[in-house]
Amino acid sequence: MNFEPIGVVHSPFPQIADMPIQPTGAQGVEGAIELAPELVEGLRDLDGFSHLIVIYHFHRAGACRLTVTPFLDARPHGVFATRAPKRPNPIGLSIVRLRRIEKNLLHIEDVDILDGTPVLDIKPYVPAFDRPDGVRSGWLEQAGEAVRSKRSDRRFE
Amino acid sequence: MNFEPIGVVHSPFPQIADMPIQPTGAQGVEGAIELAPELVEGLRDLDGFSHLIVIYHFHRAGACRLTVTPFLDARPHGVFATRAPKRPNPIGLSIVRLRRIEKNLLHIEDVDILDGTPVLDIKPYVPAFDRPDGVRSGWLEQAGEAVRSKRSDRRFE
Repeated sequence: MNFEPIGVVHSPFPQIADMPIQPTGAQGVEGAIELAPELVEGLRDLDGFSHLIVIYHFHRAGACRLTVTPFLDARPHGVFATRAPKRPNPIGLSIVRLRRIEKNLLHIEDVDILDGTPVLDIKPYVPAFDRPDGVRSGWLEQAGEAVRSKRSDRRFE
Repeated sequence: MNFEPIGVVHSPFPQIADMPIQPTGAQGVEGAIELAPELVEGLRDLDGFSHLIVIYHFHRAGACRLTVTPFLDARPHGVFATRAPKRPNPIGLSIVRLRRIEKNLLHIEDVDILDGTPVLDIKPYVPAFDRPDGVRSGWLEQAGEAVRSKRSDRRFE
């Protein structure tokens, strides 16, 4: 199936190396989503939400690998058990804070996304839908704190 | 950009009408993701996670509308302030419970996805990444309980 970008991310991260690896490690980092002007009507009432689910294209990720060693662990894991970008479909997902909307510009915070990233979709983050109970997070249980400080390198270019 | 399905969803919902509208309304509903057999290596260690983020193609959604009246409200909203399927890129997202994995078959629960839906990506749900603090959810603040019982109709076909 073919998708066209609906906009582009502006962020302080022009290159893959040395980025925060999740919004948790990007607290307070400001950026913006510049939406295609003809889609502005679709933003109506979005300003009532504090957080967005941003779905985007990992446009700089190298070819898919089914087994990857992620930033947060020294051991290899299946790519579907990680958030690494070299996926069969290089689709990224980040939950960012929405600060304000000016016309087609969405000012966002906690941005862990590469500058120039093509955006595929924007959804409101809704705790009633997106916050399940009784969660176990496998090999990432131990990595919860490391994600705040760990930075990327070039392994997924 | 062009994406190919990595698998397909099996669920008890063969048609759009009368489906649960979010995993919250589909508690205990069982289904499966049948992954392309050549991608099984990518599942390694996924069984340690209780929940998955499933990204899929709303393959039966009609043409995009920028203003929609969602199931949970009588008032129209911008499509990006809703989870409605008629989006500029018809990409869906559900957080489902992972019960077990048998080869290329992922048995899942809390399934609000149409039978036959093409899957684009599977990611582990990780509270440290996906559970922001201080959330406001706009027009959906009041709808939190209705989502448990409300069912779909045919408006997004």
